[in-house]
Amino acid sequence: MRTQKNGADFCLKEMILDMFAQALDEWRQAIGEDYVITDPSALAQAETATFLTNQRIPAILRPANRAEVQACVRIANTYKVPLYPVSNGKNWGYGSQVPAQDGCVLLHLQRMQQIVEYNERLAYVTVEPGVTVRQLYHFLEEHHSPHFVSVVGGPMDTSLIGNAIERGLGTGRYADRFGHVCEFEVVLPTGECIHTGYDRFPSALAGPVSRWSVGPYLDGLFTQSNFGIVTRMTIWLLPKPRVAASCLFTLKEDRGLEALIDALYVLKFEGGFPSIYLYNDYKFLSMLLVQSPELAKESGTFISPEMMGPIRQALNFGAWSGSVAFQCASQQMCDAMCAFVRETLADKVDTLRFYFFENPPRLECAKGGGERIVDLLTAQSSLDTVNNDGGLRTTYWRKRYLPSGDMNPDRDHCGVIWCAPLVPLTGEHVREAKTIIERVAFAHKMEPHLSLESVTERTLIITVVLLYDRDLPGEDERAMACHDELLHELTSAGYIPYRLGIHSMQGLPAPIDDSALLQQRLKDALDPNAILAPGRYDFRAQNTRG
Amino acid sequence: MRTQKNGADFCLKEMILDMFAQALDEWRQAIGEDYVITDPSALAQAETATFLTNQRIPAILRPANRAEVQACVRIANTYKVPLYPVSNGKNWGYGSQVPAQDGCVLLHLQRMQQIVEYNERLAYVTVEPGVTVRQLYHFLEEHHSPHFVSVVGGPMDTSLIGNAIERGLGTGRYADRFGHVCEFEVVLPTGECIHTGYDRFPSALAGPVSRWSVGPYLDGLFTQSNFGIVTRMTIWLLPKPRVAASCLFTLKEDRGLEALIDALYVLKFEGGFPSIYLYNDYKFLSMLLVQSPELAKESGTFISPEMMGPIRQALNFGAWSGSVAFQCASQQMCDAMCAFVRETLADKVDTLRFYFFENPPRLECAKGGGERIVDLLTAQSSLDTVNNDGGLRTTYWRKRYLPSGDMNPDRDHCGVIWCAPLVPLTGEHVREAKTIIERVAFAHKMEPHLSLESVTERTLIITVVLLYDRDLPGEDERAMACHDELLHELTSAGYIPYRLGIHSMQGLPAPIDDSALLQQRLKDALDPNAILAPGRYDFRAQNTRG
Repeated sequence: MRTQKNGADFCLKEMILDMFAQALDEWRQAIGEDYVITDPSALAQAETATFLTNQRIPAILRPANRAEVQACVRIANTYKVPLYPVSNGKNWGYGSQVPAQDGCVLLHLQRMQQIVEYNERLAYVTVEPGVTVRQLYHFLEEHHSPHFVSVVGGPMDTSLIGNAIERGLGTGRYADRFGHVCEFEVVLPTGECIHTGYDRFPSALAGPVSRWSVGPYLDGLFTQSNFGIVTRMTIWLLPKPRVAASCLFTLKEDRGLEALIDALYVLKFEGGFPSIYLYNDYKFLSMLLVQSPELAKESGTFISPEMMGPIRQALNFGAWSGSVAFQCASQQMCDAMCAFVRETLADKVDTLRFYFFENPPRLECAKGGGERIVDLLTAQSSLDTVNNDGGLRTTYWRKRYLPSGDMNPDRDHCGVIWCAPLVPLTGEHVREAKTIIERVAFAHKMEPHLSLESVTERTLIITVVLLYDRDLPGEDERAMACHDELLHELTSAGYIPYRLGIHSMQGLPAPIDDSALLQQRLKDALDPNAILAPGRYDFRAQNTRG
Repeated sequence: MRTQKNGADFCLKEMILDMFAQALDEWRQAIGEDYVITDPSALAQAETATFLTNQRIPAILRPANRAEVQACVRIANTYKVPLYPVSNGKNWGYGSQVPAQDGCVLLHLQRMQQIVEYNERLAYVTVEPGVTVRQLYHFLEEHHSPHFVSVVGGPMDTSLIGNAIERGLGTGRYADRFGHVCEFEVVLPTGECIHTGYDRFPSALAGPVSRWSVGPYLDGLFTQSNFGIVTRMTIWLLPKPRVAASCLFTLKEDRGLEALIDALYVLKFEGGFPSIYLYNDYKFLSMLLVQSPELAKESGTFISPEMMGPIRQALNFGAWSGSVAFQCASQQMCDAMCAFVRETLADKVDTLRFYFFENPPRLECAKGGGERIVDLLTAQSSLDTVNNDGGLRTTYWRKRYLPSGDMNPDRDHCGVIWCAPLVPLTGEHVREAKTIIERVAFAHKMEPHLSLESVTERTLIITVVLLYDRDLPGEDERAMACHDELLHELTSAGYIPYRLGIHSMQGLPAPIDDSALLQQRLKDALDPNAILAPGRYDFRAQNTRG
């Protein structure tokens, strides 16, 4: 509690509290008492992320449908109370469901979990924000669907909409999630509702199948922004492939990285291959063991690069382990792709294997052998998404115990901080970024867990994960100091994240042009009372230059 | 000249003329006398499209660089004179360089023709608005580049930027032009300059290689809109393929269309094939003969469906002719793709051939034979873009003579009107749209020339071209009446164009939601004096509802 300097301040505070109480009353009338939550323990839970946060949440609203979202937004405008929407609140490592700024009412959209439409002929679903990857997976199974959903990098209980509007990563041909969704229904910060694409026209038929329609393309305005609340979206599905295979490869020593990356570019650019993954030794070890070896669990005893060499030898894996999955329309296409991969990668890697998803599965060793890669990475690249926890288990890497029941890194004080710079897809750039990451991480005695994913043809995203135990004193501060230096060093070198968390929203440099002014004008035009998600991807002039 | 009703009106007009004279003076100071054009013959030429227009252009400005564009825009704001930017003014069939509304000063960007950067390693160019497909083609040839540019559907002298921000169509993997460009430099309607994507940050490295960066994705805001002037853009290039082939096919009778379209969907969706083309008999005949048979050149003697049957028989082509081109990284991949095409299409078509771009070229007949398709469609699908006039010759279809020198449909009074609805990629939808088009066209005694292109996996764009001779009296009105009914009937049935021309900007129904209000707010925020391209993709509340 802040000290009140004088009576006027006191009066102002009383007035604000009174206004807020009125807003609560109106919200209760609009969406029902049960769904306006002010219970301190529920609020405390919502205020907990996988790293240190100080933001307080005065209330949680849980509307059931779009009309209720609109009502909530209108009341927020009346009383000038900021709202922070989350789809399902599972943005682990980026802030979970904690708002970017203090004092925001959480607008939780989890109750909106309708799969509104499934079109089998044209392979899409239209969903609400509460629909998770898991829910859609089971839905498609129940309907004996010939389609599957490209999994997200995160856990199965992630919101499909939340992931797409954060422009998160999936796998396979639709790994670029935002590139394969359309037809947003958006509640504007002033309460009106719009539909992007063709869907805004009466009797339009191409709404769910075309990203562009006619006139300005506006979907992008509502991704990584605070310009609107997406209450419905169409997500495209992929065909279950007639033939599927994975290529798995390892690089024993780090020095071959540049040549390998340049070869991966050929696969992407000339071969048109979908997503390619590459894991460094720290990341691979965490996938292998799930929990850090005893010696390294306590603060100060991180696995140093000197320790990593013997561990790699003992457990038999390389400096880098990677996979390329492909889903083909025919066996002949699959064979041709395997041959091209073999030709392109053979002299760039130490082991090269192909795993064919047949019945029974078949493994073919094209080069080398013995490293522990097959089971792990084939599971990663399989379509059996429901058994893939999206790396959730690895958030317990530094904890003393795995949970006996469901996993919840917020509740269990798992320390997880992500920083994910995007780099041009050349060996030179990947080397440069990796050198920066290792220098900063090792100086802070933090382990750099790196996942490299190439989604588009010219880029690679390096996801740096800092894992620690929040129950150990001082670790929260130590890990965040490491993150902040990482972000600063990478950004200064030109490697800027592809997304931000609530811990990094203010971490980017001011633009060199009038972009901040443009953001300011857009925000003022769409959200004159500034009630929607202040601080979230908020690059307005006042923020970056003021 | 309008009649002046009284002295007050006269005074107002004088004042406006005086203001305009001042604006001209300032523009002359800003960009040089030679580049502020008021010569009546030049203006008359700029006011001429391939169909009837009434818009007058009071002056043409030809700035040399971005700073001069900014100066022009600032002066336009001072004197409240509307500006209409065109990149190269070759938007034939959609209005050429004629503004959407009367009284706009033309801001012609043709002098900005720098290829600012070419990055061979990551396969992109950064260009200004005046750079044409032809210029880039020669540039890449001169640099012995391993890359090529996906051609546009239109002529080689089209602006690359103009085509991309209209979201025009190319060929091959990057046929979805807007899907493969990034890093826009934009002059806002108030004169400031912004860069989209990573390019706005100091020292960012991923600007030219990533469409999304961090924060809201704004490129779409500046496509098919009047929200800004794009003065620079990065365009991605494709690798010259190691192996290239085309599949050419014909369908003798129209009744097999539904099954063929459904098979093409399998190629796109399961096979991941790039662009697929399909031409109806009218379109194919115009490509074959270039000029209409004598009997059909004059008004009223269009080629009726009854006449088309015998013509098809005599010239030996089918109701539909199509092609699928593929560019592969290996011979084995090419063979596998050919096999998949054969398997998918064989029982849906009457002839099926493969043309391999080898030295010497090789033709393989998989089914049927004899139809005149090979030479024509292989030329279409080759990479030798400079010898491909993008259908420009067919604009002379109803003229009495082909021009002896360069082709210019505006100058030569070629009548060309396009209407291009986007339909979901199912046989049923394509049939329904085609039925509407033929019913309307035949009722107006106009020939429906149809090109069908499937660019994305779930959609097909039907480009209807109405061709006529503007020198024949009454034809302008007759053709436009046909277009207007086409647009209305297609739109009412749910098949809405993917782009508009100046003849159709006001032709769409009002939205069913608050989209017009959103457009209004965006326009007011970005262009408070409404000086930029009024009427161009202008779906504001006042327009659609006022």
